[in-house]
Order: sequence, then structure tokens, then C-alpha cells
Amino acid sequence: MTLTGNMLIGQQAIAGNREAIRGIDPTTDLPLEPAYHGGSSEHVEQACALAWNALDSYRATSLEARAEFLETIASEIEALGDELIDRAVAETGLPRPRIQGERGRTCQQLRTFARTVRAGEWLDVRVDSALPERQPLPRPDLRQRQVPLGPVAVFGASNFPLAFSVAGGDTASALAAGCPVIVKAHGAHPGTSELVGRALARAVKLCGLHEGVFSLLFGSGREVGIALVTDPRIKAVGFTGSRSGGIALCNAAQARPEPIPVYAEMSSINPVLLFPAALQSRAEALAQGFVASLTQGAGQFCTNPGLVIARQGPDLERFIQSAAQLLQRSPAQTMLTPGIFKAYEAGVGALAEHAHAKTVAVGLKGETPNQCQTHLFVTQASEFLADTALQAEMFGAASLIVQCANDEQIRQVIEHLEGQLTATLHLDDADVESARALLPTLECKAGRLLVNGWPTGVEVCDAMVHGGPFPATSDARTTSVGTAAILRFLRPVCYQDFPDALLPAALKHGNPLQLRRLLDGQREA
Amino acid sequence: MTLTGNMLIGQQAIAGNREAIRGIDPTTDLPLEPAYHGGSSEHVEQACALAWNALDSYRATSLEARAEFLETIASEIEALGDELIDRAVAETGLPRPRIQGERGRTCQQLRTFARTVRAGEWLDVRVDSALPERQPLPRPDLRQRQVPLGPVAVFGASNFPLAFSVAGGDTASALAAGCPVIVKAHGAHPGTSELVGRALARAVKLCGLHEGVFSLLFGSGREVGIALVTDPRIKAVGFTGSRSGGIALCNAAQARPEPIPVYAEMSSINPVLLFPAALQSRAEALAQGFVASLTQGAGQFCTNPGLVIARQGPDLERFIQSAAQLLQRSPAQTMLTPGIFKAYEAGVGALAEHAHAKTVAVGLKGETPNQCQTHLFVTQASEFLADTALQAEMFGAASLIVQCANDEQIRQVIEHLEGQLTATLHLDDADVESARALLPTLECKAGRLLVNGWPTGVEVCDAMVHGGPFPATSDARTTSVGTAAILRFLRPVCYQDFPDALLPAALKHGNPLQLRRLLDGQREA
Repeated sequence: MTLTGNMLIGQQAIAGNREAIRGIDPTTDLPLEPAYHGGSSEHVEQACALAWNALDSYRATSLEARAEFLETIASEIEALGDELIDRAVAETGLPRPRIQGERGRTCQQLRTFARTVRAGEWLDVRVDSALPERQPLPRPDLRQRQVPLGPVAVFGASNFPLAFSVAGGDTASALAAGCPVIVKAHGAHPGTSELVGRALARAVKLCGLHEGVFSLLFGSGREVGIALVTDPRIKAVGFTGSRSGGIALCNAAQARPEPIPVYAEMSSINPVLLFPAALQSRAEALAQGFVASLTQGAGQFCTNPGLVIARQGPDLERFIQSAAQLLQRSPAQTMLTPGIFKAYEAGVGALAEHAHAKTVAVGLKGETPNQCQTHLFVTQASEFLADTALQAEMFGAASLIVQCANDEQIRQVIEHLEGQLTATLHLDDADVESARALLPTLECKAGRLLVNGWPTGVEVCDAMVHGGPFPATSDARTTSVGTAAILRFLRPVCYQDFPDALLPAALKHGNPLQLRRLLDGQREA
Repeated sequence: MTLTGNMLIGQQAIAGNREAIRGIDPTTDLPLEPAYHGGSSEHVEQACALAWNALDSYRATSLEARAEFLETIASEIEALGDELIDRAVAETGLPRPRIQGERGRTCQQLRTFARTVRAGEWLDVRVDSALPERQPLPRPDLRQRQVPLGPVAVFGASNFPLAFSVAGGDTASALAAGCPVIVKAHGAHPGTSELVGRALARAVKLCGLHEGVFSLLFGSGREVGIALVTDPRIKAVGFTGSRSGGIALCNAAQARPEPIPVYAEMSSINPVLLFPAALQSRAEALAQGFVASLTQGAGQFCTNPGLVIARQGPDLERFIQSAAQLLQRSPAQTMLTPGIFKAYEAGVGALAEHAHAKTVAVGLKGETPNQCQTHLFVTQASEFLADTALQAEMFGAASLIVQCANDEQIRQVIEHLEGQLTATLHLDDADVESARALLPTLECKAGRLLVNGWPTGVEVCDAMVHGGPFPATSDARTTSVGTAAILRFLRPVCYQDFPDALLPAALKHGNPLQLRRLLDGQREA
């Protein structure tokens, strides 16, 4: 298969007419062919018109048909074979096994949503039967189900070219909910995006769906993104990226005549708390685990452990020394894009020059372009509390250790934190009561709390929460990973006294979908 | 019990120090004693500090304790006896049986949420057990539950002095979710608000809860409201009122350093579609039902049928003539406040002077102040499509009939509508297929669809949706009436590899709360 440089508006391959984007091999800084010309607001208009036209038939698909569509997408992605892997490696500089693993995760994610769609619990069917004899007034027959919000705009992420991109979590959950999707591809991996987009478009065709169920656009500036978010036919937005980018989309969505929800995953430094007994018993092992988590994938994860909080003292010194020794030997790694590398250098540079942050260790320097050198810094709690700049995310393999004088200062540091995707506790039995005292605060700060693990590695399952209070995300009420993500693209509708012939299958009196409904206040067996 | 004119900051009765608000008897325009001096931003600060301090202990209450608290509020409201009824009648001009019914509904609502809290399904417990042997990577133990967002600011509505006010739906659902509540009382019924607020504060004390679980503030201008919405300890807002008021709160919430969700219920004209066979077989009966729904409570309902859509012809003429005859004889009714009366007069005045709206009927004129005269107007679909001013809500007993030339024009009118709380279909068997064709569009427009009923009358039950796309509400993903309202004040948190001792009861391995968890992909029996 040859890459064409085209967008996909429904089943049509369309060349953009704006500035060209090219993938760049970050190991060489050399551009990759072909050029991907950006789309215009007219292309957005066409894609939105198609998506709107596709809405009614797509959301009317049976649970089985929709599940098969998701599974077909997975098969079509797998059928791309090594061409996809080769291109993604070239565009991202990520190691081949990582990309292979990410493909597996992406396809598993699609199949997991297929299972979720079939189970139908997300329809949240509630029935209150008519009570015609009730006094003083009869009760009508009332039935509730969830319906899709409408067409969704998805902005692919730079750091997961497959799992958070064209057919990634946002797309999978929106399609599962019954929403047509228009993806704006991330400029860092246009070729990967084209390949996956074509696989997805083939699945649309194979499943006999309306072509408007999926479109793929490119765009280098703001034109395509803002046109998408402000189009009246777009009813929700999924985004993974920078804090400034996410806030800009939120503001544009809120300024619409009809504001819409934006699910922006933005900024998180993922605090790691080292409790005294754990530090005492295994400072060196903790340092090892920490460095492995910090340096994995050049630290280019939303859940990278960018902050360590602990009580100062000899045990913390042992942790710092061990971590420093490991980090000094840690090889540089290629970052995803020249832009991300530049931002990382600026971030660690600013911290290195900060009056109250001390550089503890720097990793090995690389010889090729865009090499991420690991950085570890240390500061005092009083300084951390006094300067919010010390909370700024450094996207990459850099972390800051906050030394606290006592438990009260640890509490203050935690209360001072912005919202987070994760918070991690390393503790031994003797630490349990100290940890318990902090849990209520931590629950208000983060979407996922871990004990004795590391935050990198986000399982796709029912119980996952990849979300959290602002600025980790723009909407802490949902998750972007795991099956609960389907809920973010739904809204409830109630049907009062409908004749059975007009009720959707999920709500018909005979319960043909065999759902476990909430029937007259009782959950059906 | 003597009214004091005081606010309640926790258990303390505090006099405001800003401009005084007085209840006004709308039947006489005379002010009622006592004066309620508005609070200041310092009072907001105090109430928010208390609410924040109350959060951890309140959200840690057992399901049983929280349910008993809600039931105690209901009992304490009932124990207010006739004093509450007398005051609410005096402040609102609403008929005594209506206020008595609303008290019953308010207490039933609290008890319904008690049942919902006890059942615990809202915790949405999801467990993915550890798979230590999984290849290539083990799966950790992952457990998800819902936690409360945090302290909630509730703005009482003018038109339901009990059911949508101090202890109304927003307060009940937020308390059910585990959120402390600060109510800004509506200035139209301060005495009613004080009475209910004191009942609620007594329930807090009787149940041994932290006093910060509930506060009640008064305020005449924007100071208290904006201070509440922008306080960093407030994590969500519930509001029922005007479109401009709701949008102002949404913008203030979005402009915070940490934006928060606002659930504003604002503006809805609740279209009623009369299908041909139904019109032919029972135009007069439909007119009777329509007029009864339109004039109930002087039309001061969010679900008032403010728009009728039908195909022009002799059957619609019969409907219009019947409705006009009934309306001309319909007595004027006292509106809730001089302000609402003035806005109603302005709204019907503007429509009466509109070049393309014809006045069909006007009800009887009243002799006392603030009397709502019923109004019925008619326009053509082409005019309705050309001027969005014809969609403006007239809060009161006024409605507009849109005459359509054909089915296609009916479809256009529906597609042209803004978001609605309800949409109603009157149909006979012969109309079913026409109705079916419109359902996908109607589902995108409204939160509740009714067949052969009238939208006034909102049942408090599991299946109710009182919500809908903008501007009906600011967030179509939730409902403000019914037990699903608890979900709007929650967010998910995931616990990874937690020792049992640190897990909350809902997530412990032994499932002590006996919840039906989603366990390894299967719903427990």
C-alpha cells in the first residue's frame, strides 16, 4: 500500500489545499514522504455534513452490528501488517516492540469496547411502569435510555500514535456510543494516521455503514481544529495534548451558541509519595522502580512520575543517591518530535536555573537529534509551596523531588497540588495509618491512586480511570481509558407513555435485548 | 416559630449586612416581614470554609447514615406544619393545595434519594482482579467507585419554592452524592427558605453531622452568587432560572483557574406536535388538554407547552377555535413575583406586536396585581423559520401555534428548534409512521419525549429525565429530577493494588456492602 498524502472525507480520498505537513524521523530530523496538505474549513464543513447525515443510521445500528464494526476495525488495523509498524517507528522514533505492543493494545481496546457494546449496560435502562390508579394523580409509563451525543471531533495525541490517535481510545469509545467521528490527525505521525484511517474507512465499508461515520482530516494551523470545534453539528470533543491547547478548545466550545463538552486530557505530574517505613526498608529498590518508570519511553507518558514527595532524612538521601547513580548511567532516548524535544529542553533548562531547585543527576547525552537526557531535581517543600512554577509539567524523563520537614508539610504539599491523573503511595504496613490520613485529600486530587506500583502503564479495563481534576483533564467526571469511557459520549432520554411500536428496542415492554433493567426501583436479575 | 431574617452559616444564624430583600405578597404587592439582609463575600467565605471542612467526614458517612439524614430532612420539613404552607402561599401567590402538594413531592423526593443511596448502585463499583501471571505484563488489581465532586452551590428557583429550592432536587441529589451544599435562596421566597433551611440545619444536628454540610445564604445582587461560583472550594453548581442568569454562571465557572461543572436549567418552550389523525379524531379534546396544561399554575413551569406544531387545515382550525374559546374564559392568575409578571407582559406584548404572529385569544383580565392573562398566538412555519425571536420563552401561560404547510415543513420546524426539556406527540395509530420518522430528530432536541400526554407534571422516579440540550440546560448529560440526578455530583476514582485495609468499604475484597459489582467483566447476581 502506498501512502497518498490524502485526507479521508467519508470514503473519498481528498487532497488538502493548505500548508503541507510532513512526518519527521526524529532520529535524523529528516522529513518523510509524502506531504500531507492541510485541510480547510470547507473540508471540515464536508466532513461534518457527512457525519451529521450518518448519525441517525449509525446510532440505530444494533448492538451486535456496532460491536462487529469495532472488531472489524481491529482486524483491518492488524491487516496493515509491518507497513504500519515501520511507518510508526519512522515517524515517532519509538522502539519497534513498543509500537507492536501499542498496536496490540489498540486492537484489544476496540475489541473490549465491542464486548461493552454487546453487554448493553451502558444503555442504563430504567423503567417506571404506569400506575393508572395512583392517587392523587396516576403515574405515566416512563422509560429511560442513553443516546449518543452526536458527531464527535477527536484530536489525536502525539505520544501514542496508535492507542490515543486515529483509532485510539476516544474514537473507539465514541463509535461504541453510537457517535460518528471526525479525527484531526496529529501532525507528528501523518503516515501512521493515513494507514489507520484507511483501515477504519475500510471497516466502515465492509460493515455497510454510512460513509460519514468516519472522516480523517489534516491541518497544520488552527483552521481545521477551530472549525471542527465550532461546527454546530459537532456535539463533543476528545483531545489529548498540552494544557494551552486543551484550554483553547474548551474556550472555543464554551463560546459556541450551543456550548458542547470537551474532554481534554492535558497536564499531570503524577506525584509519588514515599512513606517512611517503605523508604527505610527499600530505598534502593524504590529508586530502581522509579527510574525505570521515569525513563520508560523517554518519559513521554501522561502518567510519568514527575514529582516525588517524601520526608527528608537519611532514607530519602539513600533514595536520591541510588536514583542519581542509575540516572547518570541512563542512555538518552529519541523524543517524538523536534517540538517536544525543544519544549523538554526549555522545561528542564528553566528548572536547572531555578533558584530553589537543585539538579541532582543528569543522564547520558545523546549523539543524534532530539535526544532526551534524563533529569532529576530536588527542592524543599517550603519552596515548592511558594512557587507554582515548580508544578509545571516537563513532558519527558524529568522529575522533581520535594523534601518535606515533617508530615504536616507533606499534607500541605499534597493540598497545594493541582489536579492529577494519578497519585502513587509507596508504603509498608507501618505506613498504613499515615497513608489513610492522606487518602481523602488524594481522592480529591487524582483519578487513580496506586499503592506500591508505578503510574506508567494504564490498563484498558472496566475499572480504569484515566482522568482527574483540572488541569489533568477538563472534566473529572469521566475517563479516557477503559470501558467507562463510553459514558462520556451519551446523554439520557426519557420516553413517556410511548406505544410499544415506537419504543426503541432497549425499552420495549418485552425487553428483547434482555437487559438487566432498573424496573420499578429493582434491578432485574 | 418566628422568622428571624437570618442566614444560616452552618448552625449559626447570621444577619446579612447588605441590601435587604423582603418577600412580596404578589396578590397585593405588599412586602412581608421580616427583612432579609443580603450576605457578603465574607459570608460566602465562611460558608465555603465550613463546607470544605465538612467534606471528608460527610462523604465518609455510611449509606445508611446518609439515607437517614435525607429522611430526617423530610420529617423536619413536615414538622414545620402549616407555618410553612402559610408562608409559601403568602410569598408566591400559589394556591394552597399546590403548595401542599409540592411539600409532599419535596419530602417524597428526599425519601426517594434515601432509597437510592441505600441501594448503592450509584457507586458503580467495577473490579478487575489482579492477573499476576499474565503475559507479557501482569495486570494489577484495579477497583473503581464514584466519589462526590465536593461542596456544591445551589441556586433556588422562583417557581418551586419547595421542590426546586432550599431542600429541592439539586440539594437532595448533591447531599445524596456526599456533597456539602450551600444554598443561595431565591429572593422571591426568603421566609419559606428560612423555614426549610432551619429544618435542614436541625436535621444536620439531629444526625450528628458536621455543621458545614449545609448553609443558607441570601443576596440581592451578584455578590453572593459570583463569590459562590468562583470560590475554589465549590466544585459544582446547580441552578434553575433564566437563560441569561444560567449563562452568566456558566461563564463565571469556566473562567475560574479550575473550571467546574454548572448544571443550569434555563429555557424551554416544550413543543407539542399534533399529528393529522389525532387532530382529526379529537381536536376539541386536544384543545381541552392543551389549555389545562398551559394555564396550570399560571403557566409558570419549565415544561409549559409554549409551542404547538401542526399541519394547517380544517382540523387544526377546530383545535385553534376550541382552544381560543376555552382560553377566553380562563381566569387570570397571580404570578409569582412582580418581576416575573413584568417579564411576561413584555414577552406577550412583543409577540402581540410581531408582524408575523397573530393573537388568537386572550384570557380574562385580573383585578389584582400581577395577574397573568393567558395568551395564544399563531404564526406560519415560514415565519417561524425566519425569525428566532419567535422561539423566545415567555414564562407564563402563553403559547404559539406554528401552522405548517406540509410534513416537510414540520420537519424543518423541528430541526430549527433549540434544545428542549420536553417534546410531546399527539398521535393516533395512523400517525405512528409519521411520528417514527421524526423521532431521531426529536431525541436530539429534547430530554423527555411524551406521547398523548402533556409535559407539565414531572414525576420523581428512576426513569425521569428533566434536562436536555442547550439552552434547555447547560449540560444535557444529566437530569435535575429523578434519582439519576445523583450521578451529576460524582466522579470516578480508581484504586490500584490497594491493600484491603486502605480500600473504602464499597471496594473491599469481601464486598461488605453487598453491591452488585462489575467483577472481571461480569455483573454480579
